[in-house]
Formats: sequence, structure tokens, C-alpha cells
Amino acid sequence: MPSDPSCIFCRIIADQAEASKVYQDDIVTAFMDKQPLTPGHLLVVPNEHSANLAELDETIAGRMFVVGRQLAQALRRSGLRCEGVNLFLADGPAAGQTVFHSHLHVIPRFIGDGFGLRFPPGYGRGASREDLDTVAVKVEAALRGNRG
Amino acid sequence: MPSDPSCIFCRIIADQAEASKVYQDDIVTAFMDKQPLTPGHLLVVPNEHSANLAELDETIAGRMFVVGRQLAQALRRSGLRCEGVNLFLADGPAAGQTVFHSHLHVIPRFIGDGFGLRFPPGYGRGASREDLDTVAVKVEAALRGNRG
Repeated sequence: MPSDPSCIFCRIIADQAEASKVYQDDIVTAFMDKQPLTPGHLLVVPNEHSANLAELDETIAGRMFVVGRQLAQALRRSGLRCEGVNLFLADGPAAGQTVFHSHLHVIPRFIGDGFGLRFPPGYGRGASREDLDTVAVKVEAALRGNRG
Repeated sequence: MPSDPSCIFCRIIADQAEASKVYQDDIVTAFMDKQPLTPGHLLVVPNEHSANLAELDETIAGRMFVVGRQLAQALRRSGLRCEGVNLFLADGPAAGQTVFHSHLHVIPRFIGDGFGLRFPPGYGRGASREDLDTVAVKVEAALRGNRG
């Protein structure tokens, strides 16, 4: 029984929707992205439904990344074209999230694959130390707040 | 004493190079990216030098992601513009890695920020189940080899 029957990833985890799985344990499941950015593009998802990072249990978040790392190593040994790997997670629509069950992308890369980052206008000028410090103070204060 | 004195991130961790740090524990350190993609762009790095994912200890990898998740939550509460967050890691030059001390990017996102993914030509057509299954078999075999 999927934890959220309306969620495609919950149904995949519960074998109620089609997918090409490569790994499953008590905490996470990994399967092929059906719209691969490059051949071998995988997703790692928590078995328990969580829409976003805020809902995601810390231990489960750690496990997603550990398995993502193992899959990155596997891709390099798989015979697929894989000269590098990107791990990518989008949290929230503004960050490009389209399926609201947290998922970590594991994307094989090779020179000339056509995939990459689109940089904002003016990127590369860098920021002043003063600006960076101002931002750091805000993040640090919020982080302390998070931790209670 | 930095674990690799020629590595800029090792020197930052050891307070021998300038950075705007927001967090440090026994395992990882987080600081502002000096060329932010958006204001608030952070890096989470293992304290011990490891050039890439292959060298990275599994427990440390998990901790990087856990702290990345905490920073994502902090960014949303920081007062900085943050409607979403991307977590991003580049492993190997073909994946865009330029500093060879593993690092997880934590990037605040907002609508119209100009940052995003550059998709390969033809992306979105999807792959056939047969092709996905063929790739999955290869990854699964390599994964078993990794664990074997």
C-alpha cells in the first residue's frame, strides 16, 4: 500500500506503477528517470512520502545521499558513458521541483553531453567579503533558530 | 594544519584562508560561495580532504547532506530571498567540478533568478521502457559489484 496513493513515486515504491528499479532497501528506492537528461539518469527517493526537504527526516536525507554516492560509483563502472556525475535536488517549485515526493537526481556526465547549469546574468563577478559576511550572519542566525 | 595545504577548502577549514563561515562541526564546514549563483549560495565540505565522491567516506557523505538540508531550511528563514533551494554536487571535471575537494552546493532560488539547468538537445522526449530496463540492468550489476 503506497503511503500516498495519489503520488507516482509512492506507487513505484509499492510496485503499483511501472519503473526500472535498480535498488531498494527499508529506507530508499532508486530507479531510472523516465525522462533521462543523459542515459543512466537515476532518482533516489525516500520510501516514506515526504513532499519536500522540510518534511524529510534527517536520517532518511543522509541515507538518500549515501545511496546516491553508491550509485554514482556504480554508474562509473556500469559500461554506460560516465566521465563524471552530478547529484541534484530541487526543493520547491521555484527550484524546479515538479514531483512533490523528495528525490535526488544522480546524473551521469560526459564531455559534450549538452547538459549543465544555466548561469544568471553577471555570474562570475564574485561578491565582496562584506556582502558575503552580511549574508553569512543572516544564515547563521536562522540556523541557530532552526536548532532551537 | 590543513589536511592538504595546497587545497583552498582545506585552508578555509583550518582558518588559514578567508571565508564567510556559517557552520562547522567535527565532520563538515559550511561557508558562503565566493561566486554566488544567487545571494546566500553556500558550500558544505568535509573537513578531511577528499578530492571526489570515490574518496569520500560514506558517513561523511551522509553528514554533508544532512547539514545541506539544515542550511536549506535556514535559508528559507533567513530573510534572504529564498522560495526554493537546489542542492548540487559536481563529481569530476566532466560534471563541472573545478575545486577538487568534494563540496555540496546549497543554492537559494526564487522565480526569475536566472539560474537553472541547461537541458540537452532533444530532452523531454523520454526513453522507452525497454531502453530504461537495459540501462537499469547495467547499473544494478555494477552496484552489486561495488558491494561485492
